[in-house]
Amino acid sequence: MQIDIITVLPEMFEGFLSESIVGRARKQGLVEINIHNLRDYTKDKHNRVDDYPFGGGSGMIMQIQPIADCIKSLQDKLMEDKGESYDAIIYTSPDGKQFNQPMANELSQLKNIIILCGHYKGIDHRIREKLITHEVSIGDYVLSGGELPAAVMTDAIVRVIPGAIGDSQAALDDCFQDNLLAPPIYTRPAHYEGFGDVPEILLCGDPKKIREWELQMAMERTRRLRPDLLSE
Amino acid sequence: MQIDIITVLPEMFEGFLSESIVGRARKQGLVEINIHNLRDYTKDKHNRVDDYPFGGGSGMIMQIQPIADCIKSLQDKLMEDKGESYDAIIYTSPDGKQFNQPMANELSQLKNIIILCGHYKGIDHRIREKLITHEVSIGDYVLSGGELPAAVMTDAIVRVIPGAIGDSQAALDDCFQDNLLAPPIYTRPAHYEGFGDVPEILLCGDPKKIREWELQMAMERTRRLRPDLLSE
Repeated sequence: MQIDIITVLPEMFEGFLSESIVGRARKQGLVEINIHNLRDYTKDKHNRVDDYPFGGGSGMIMQIQPIADCIKSLQDKLMEDKGESYDAIIYTSPDGKQFNQPMANELSQLKNIIILCGHYKGIDHRIREKLITHEVSIGDYVLSGGELPAAVMTDAIVRVIPGAIGDSQAALDDCFQDNLLAPPIYTRPAHYEGFGDVPEILLCGDPKKIREWELQMAMERTRRLRPDLLSE
Repeated sequence: MQIDIITVLPEMFEGFLSESIVGRARKQGLVEINIHNLRDYTKDKHNRVDDYPFGGGSGMIMQIQPIADCIKSLQDKLMEDKGESYDAIIYTSPDGKQFNQPMANELSQLKNIIILCGHYKGIDHRIREKLITHEVSIGDYVLSGGELPAAVMTDAIVRVIPGAIGDSQAALDDCFQDNLLAPPIYTRPAHYEGFGDVPEILLCGDPKKIREWELQMAMERTRRLRPDLLSE
């Protein structure tokens, strides 16, 4: 899979790209992630990529030219290198469709995607109408840019590419994969001063009983904390 | 405001801490953000912070000792340095309470918070019961760790600290602050080949008419894309 991220703050991705599951998946060749600096594509002589909003108001807006030229250049290169086109051109925006686990699973099946990080007040609306195929929000809150959302989406997507997690069962056991929250989890020691004991059933050695208890706990936690997941 | 982040992957925060609004707010002294490496607090001679789950199953679980000792040490230091206690000890977990803009606004009023980043399969449940005051999820998807969620929360929180954004009106104009999506936005040029024209009303020069149109558009977009926001 190839993920091309377009941003005005390429430095934001430094730690993220080399660490954890994303770093490992890149080294294994499971995913190629390229960060593109939008400023490399502006024709403005002062290297600007934004301008004031029409109609007044606060904040700056990202202009059409650098974004349109950057996406065009990536498309040309992908066609030339691999004879392929992008399957999705995603814009991260708080008013986009809510990102969730099924969407992560789905996007992880694609071959080539672009993620365009909004910054400042956002991008010229005409880009959204003409070039963007998916508008995605990672949640109902405002961030200083689309860089963290792009990292979050990339992490969730890469994590479910087969082979990315050493123990592939771990991904399937996760929250949400079966619309249930995970049961409580415990590790050594069985007793810790001031923190009490692990539930006795986990020490009984009977896997069937333990799985039943875990399912019960998962149901109970979901019913109490996220009843909405059960009615979907 | 002081934000202490506890993690097994401190490198993940490198780009994030120096860039954008968070970087600027730190330089201005509006927020102090400290990253603590959980491994510095383990008593295990191989520097481990995790162990196998009781009851079997896949994935590793973060142990009580390093987390309990790290939090204790931060609490002692805060008391010694400033005579203060933490207002919130937050654990990032996909089954936590959904993070949203009102929560970001609220947390930004606090003086001292800890964010504990889960990793691997999660933390020993007894830590959640005994030490954590807020369990928060940034969305219904699974990530490889709590580092990106901690960065997302920090960004959303710092952004609304008075003074963090140069143009403070921009934060108030954002999506969600009034339960409406933002209207479409446009910048120069008014015509761009292949992308068409900006809506004529934005060029009319009458601020009152423009504000009315923007409100109308915001309502229309919210009704179409996020009707749930209007019924809250």
